Amino acid sequence: MTQSRVVIIGGGFAGAFTARYLRRYAPRDWDIELINSTNYFVFQPLLPEVASGTISAPDAVTPLRHMLPGVKVRMADVIGVDRTSQEVDFLQGSKRFPLSIKYDHLVIAVGQKTNLARTPGFREHSFCMRDLADAHELRNHVIQCLEHADVTEDSALKRRLLTFVVAGGGFSGVETIGEMLEMIHRTLKFYPNVNADDVSAVLVQRGERILPELSPRLSEYAQRKLAGRHVKIMVGASIQSATATAVYLDNGSCINTQTLVTTVGNGPRPVTESLGIGLDHGKVPVDEYLRVPKSDRIWCIGDAAMIPLNISDGEERKYAPPTAQFAVREARCVAKNIIAIQKQEMPTAFSYKPRGTLASIGNYKAVADVFGVRLSGLPAWLLWRSFYIGMLPGFSTRLRVALNWLFDYFLPRSIVQISNNGQPATQYRRYARGDVVCKPGQIVDGLYTVVSGYLESRIPNPETGEDFVRLIGEGDHWGERSLSGRFETQGTLTAVEDTRVLILDKDDFRSLRAAFPPLNDYFEHVSDKIYAPILRRASSEAVTKKDH
Amino acid sequence: MTQSRVVIIGGGFAGAFTARYLRRYAPRDWDIELINSTNYFVFQPLLPEVASGTISAPDAVTPLRHMLPGVKVRMADVIGVDRTSQEVDFLQGSKRFPLSIKYDHLVIAVGQKTNLARTPGFREHSFCMRDLADAHELRNHVIQCLEHADVTEDSALKRRLLTFVVAGGGFSGVETIGEMLEMIHRTLKFYPNVNADDVSAVLVQRGERILPELSPRLSEYAQRKLAGRHVKIMVGASIQSATATAVYLDNGSCINTQTLVTTVGNGPRPVTESLGIGLDHGKVPVDEYLRVPKSDRIWCIGDAAMIPLNISDGEERKYAPPTAQFAVREARCVAKNIIAIQKQEMPTAFSYKPRGTLASIGNYKAVADVFGVRLSGLPAWLLWRSFYIGMLPGFSTRLRVALNWLFDYFLPRSIVQISNNGQPATQYRRYARGDVVCKPGQIVDGLYTVVSGYLESRIPNPETGEDFVRLIGEGDHWGERSLSGRFETQGTLTAVEDTRVLILDKDDFRSLRAAFPPLNDYFEHVSDKIYAPILRRASSEAVTKKDH
Repeated sequence: MTQSRVVIIGGGFAGAFTARYLRRYAPRDWDIELINSTNYFVFQPLLPEVASGTISAPDAVTPLRHMLPGVKVRMADVIGVDRTSQEVDFLQGSKRFPLSIKYDHLVIAVGQKTNLARTPGFREHSFCMRDLADAHELRNHVIQCLEHADVTEDSALKRRLLTFVVAGGGFSGVETIGEMLEMIHRTLKFYPNVNADDVSAVLVQRGERILPELSPRLSEYAQRKLAGRHVKIMVGASIQSATATAVYLDNGSCINTQTLVTTVGNGPRPVTESLGIGLDHGKVPVDEYLRVPKSDRIWCIGDAAMIPLNISDGEERKYAPPTAQFAVREARCVAKNIIAIQKQEMPTAFSYKPRGTLASIGNYKAVADVFGVRLSGLPAWLLWRSFYIGMLPGFSTRLRVALNWLFDYFLPRSIVQISNNGQPATQYRRYARGDVVCKPGQIVDGLYTVVSGYLESRIPNPETGEDFVRLIGEGDHWGERSLSGRFETQGTLTAVEDTRVLILDKDDFRSLRAAFPPLNDYFEHVSDKIYAPILRRASSEAVTKKDH
Repeated sequence: MTQSRVVIIGGGFAGAFTARYLRRYAPRDWDIELINSTNYFVFQPLLPEVASGTISAPDAVTPLRHMLPGVKVRMADVIGVDRTSQEVDFLQGSKRFPLSIKYDHLVIAVGQKTNLARTPGFREHSFCMRDLADAHELRNHVIQCLEHADVTEDSALKRRLLTFVVAGGGFSGVETIGEMLEMIHRTLKFYPNVNADDVSAVLVQRGERILPELSPRLSEYAQRKLAGRHVKIMVGASIQSATATAVYLDNGSCINTQTLVTTVGNGPRPVTESLGIGLDHGKVPVDEYLRVPKSDRIWCIGDAAMIPLNISDGEERKYAPPTAQFAVREARCVAKNIIAIQKQEMPTAFSYKPRGTLASIGNYKAVADVFGVRLSGLPAWLLWRSFYIGMLPGFSTRLRVALNWLFDYFLPRSIVQISNNGQPATQYRRYARGDVVCKPGQIVDGLYTVVSGYLESRIPNPETGEDFVRLIGEGDHWGERSLSGRFETQGTLTAVEDTRVLILDKDDFRSLRAAFPPLNDYFEHVSDKIYAPILRRASSEAVTKKDH
């Protein structure tokens, strides 16, 4: 059979195992290259445990180079695929020059990205559970909340800091809230000013029950156990919008919280879109051989693909679920099919009967539905752990994870907060109508520019006794005076309607203003140029604006 | 004795152990509060091992709350000390409002910060080894270099990526280069396109020998061992300046590298300066009781303090060295003295004879000088490890570190790169005269503004055949056209003289330009307003500028 060069995009279950199977079944002289944006494989089902500190981040992942001997691993960002020239374009290293490599066969296993655009405030203020950085970030945030709650005198703030909301009652959502609670309750002894009953957790599920993938009995069990641990489960409810300090539900109620984890909302990755194929629910519709339409050299598997399952006639069409088990089987199938094609043989259609489903709900409990047998509680939890250990790639990762689990029994849960020092310079923030954005005496953290909506600034005028009122609308900015001179603000800034702002970090603002003359010139003259007219406009508009 | 409230600033050896000793010796009813910017204690001597992945970051540190039961731990940034009202001002949580607490006694143990201002390019392009984030960052960078070197076709770039320079031949510098080398050589088997002899390491020491704290014989031994592992040791040399791609030495030579670690250069922290005391070499001069001048309630220990050692007359003045051993002894002394003062007793002067000095040079070798006995090689290395295990606070940290060490023998060194996703929006970069900043076809990574120096942009003019020349001087900017429209640049950008630029990340630039009208207006009209005159100016200036 002819020598062949296979390029795989994506280092998750689907991608990594495709490379593995190809290396195992394909002739030695084949080039097998895997491109991934990180140099490690993430065992996604363990992310909630990373977020809860049961497993330390580096131990939850496996370096792709350890895992895939004989496979060329390239850490790079794929920027496009040229189907005519059969090339993959990517950026590597310092990412200055676009490079490309040729392929005989291309396997797209890039998964999906989180798409939070649908719900206002999710992009700005929610945590995801998709990759290691997410889990790491969530853990740091929860610890931050505990640290802050332990020292603050403000009881409302304290309550908010100790309220944790998770959106989505699927596996990821249930495991996340269960693990998060376990971590919090196990570390409370180090926070003398925080009591167990100060902590509240809410799980919001759109459907009428959590864990819909499982039998009603099991999901009912999980629901009962979580409720027993004071998790408030809201089924048939959904979050309409969020801010940095609150979550608003469709039933009109509002939960004050600084922690919203969302495990819902998927969308296609840029690479998938760059293929120029009509997507189906954001996924690539492949044939039963896992081939991309109108191509016998491009394959797509894993969460990025819409994979039809073979069914007896009369049955309604079914598609492969986005689980690790299926991804591994798809990888095996695609590897064998690529080899078959090179041998001029017929590829085989994908088919797989899942062994079962498992979900941990924390506190040494889980629910399982394996080979039709239903388990719950400790037995299910033990099965769940051994199953995962079995699925982990590589001896050293298995050992590390096993030891992490072992230590977790008799060592205190670590509360070390290793925060990413580099926080983004520009960030968007969303405020709900009536939110107070800034109070007098507050330290301004950056330059605020209104992207949409309206803010109202009120500065008391000692002479007249009444306030200077200024409306800050789309494109208007605020904060530069406090940033340029003294630190504190005299005014109160309130959101007149739902408002989205872009904030440029204060240090970056200062560096930019110092180095970039046009910006400095602008701010030199801004007060006379802008504030005077705005103050006039404000006094008139304020009235009209307020009563709408 | 009267009830008392002691506030300690700093969670390093000096601060954490002061809190510990106070809790042990002081009456129960005393309030002991420790303020630190992180919620963990760093065992600084282990940082090189974190940087080399021998120990994973979370295992190298101990949560202060685990370590200090009965002590109030506050994670906050101290912004000042008011000596008259006896208050410490700080920012905690979201850092919006300045808060303050009263103290009866204040212990300042904030250490020093790295001061890289002295050498051009150090601030912009060197890695430090002061805290956990530094070590974490260095490790990620080294792995990045290996990943990139393994896939690049550019041999010059590859050589640069595999050249590692460390400035400073003290303990930290020697341990860092030793550990870095060990990590690289142990992971090379995963990088098939990188050979051992592609890797080169350089240690630059201003003095005439490395490890000057040790006897000439031991430092000579260390030097020999490192040389045997192909570390090029340059004594009596110093680095004059650095860029992102090179290091320039005072002997006129230049080393092409993307990795410069600096273990030299200390300066006072803002808190220390805010005391309004005349500093001595950036340190607080204290009396033999560790008291700050003109105060009997403020104490200063650790690296932040200049502590006189009691000496017999005739001898020249000696000061306590900045080592963990001394810090712990100073902590004990200050704790006892505070209690003495409250008892109206006399404080005791600080005195301590160090037990010895140890330094690991990697590859299971170390040098030691203990109780006058000199050891080297494996025995010294074993002593060094057991000594550190002994110094580690808390059982669980000891166990974790011991296991990390144990596994390191029989498990492959992990090359997982968990990079901080949030990179700063603005960063400074330094270019040496003649450096090519950007080539045609390159992807522009941000808006470049010249802070000092000159860049020259040359864009070939197909009609005339000669180049459009534009000089970009202080306050001028470059890159916005590529960022706004298509991605690639047609021109070549070169540094006419040593130049410092501020770069605003491309995504932040786009967000800002989209949201902030003044910026957009400016760039809308920039080409007509600016480029025309500059092009004229350039053609004339180019000549004069070039020959200076």
